[in-house]
Amino acid sequence: MPSAEQMIAVVHAYVDGFERSDPVAIAALFAENATVEDPVGTPQKRGLAEISEFYAGSMSTGAKLELLGDPRCAADYAAFPFAVKLEFGGQKTVIEVIDTFRIDDDGKIVEMRAYWGPGNMKSA
Amino acid sequence: MPSAEQMIAVVHAYVDGFERSDPVAIAALFAENATVEDPVGTPQKRGLAEISEFYAGSMSTGAKLELLGDPRCAADYAAFPFAVKLEFGGQKTVIEVIDTFRIDDDGKIVEMRAYWGPGNMKSA
Repeated sequence: MPSAEQMIAVVHAYVDGFERSDPVAIAALFAENATVEDPVGTPQKRGLAEISEFYAGSMSTGAKLELLGDPRCAADYAAFPFAVKLEFGGQKTVIEVIDTFRIDDDGKIVEMRAYWGPGNMKSA
Repeated sequence: MPSAEQMIAVVHAYVDGFERSDPVAIAALFAENATVEDPVGTPQKRGLAEISEFYAGSMSTGAKLELLGDPRCAADYAAFPFAVKLEFGGQKTVIEVIDTFRIDDDGKIVEMRAYWGPGNMKSA
């Protein structure tokens, strides 16, 4: 079981990867066969190739993340509230999101789920 | 699929149920065979009898909830950050939590998961 400290470090590395627009650094946080469901209810991306492609696309919007509270760690999960700041159709936009990461014993993310919907998007 | 508005109303009714220390009102938000995992990684409570008993116990601490951001709605899930304010061993305590609710077509919660750990508890 990863420690809370390990999981919180993964969350901060994830935020930092966006700050540096570095999809390779983000993909390196995930395990080989990890899944990403963003937003929840859409088809999962699975494996590092699909995950890298997904994050490269996300970062093409200039997206940066800002934590809106401490990560909550329970067993092998971390959940955290944050804002995504990006350009969407030429408009500066903020999306308030909650992500959950399930993290393995090696400290790699094996499952990521992102909770957000149209009601969480606002012009900035 | 429940609407975002329906799911947000359930979240507010949940907060209100704590405000009024009314475990019966809280239990009425859940479906017959719902599961509650609080915190994530502990054994699930299943069904209305176990769920009612669990909330009656929670409320015996005087716990009140305060939303710390808008609910995030995605498909049939709502996720929301909040603070629990309670008395824990005679000490006023705040716990920062993220809950996820999965909600059915009748607007009832079928799965609740609460993400929090020791690092999210603070003396108030």
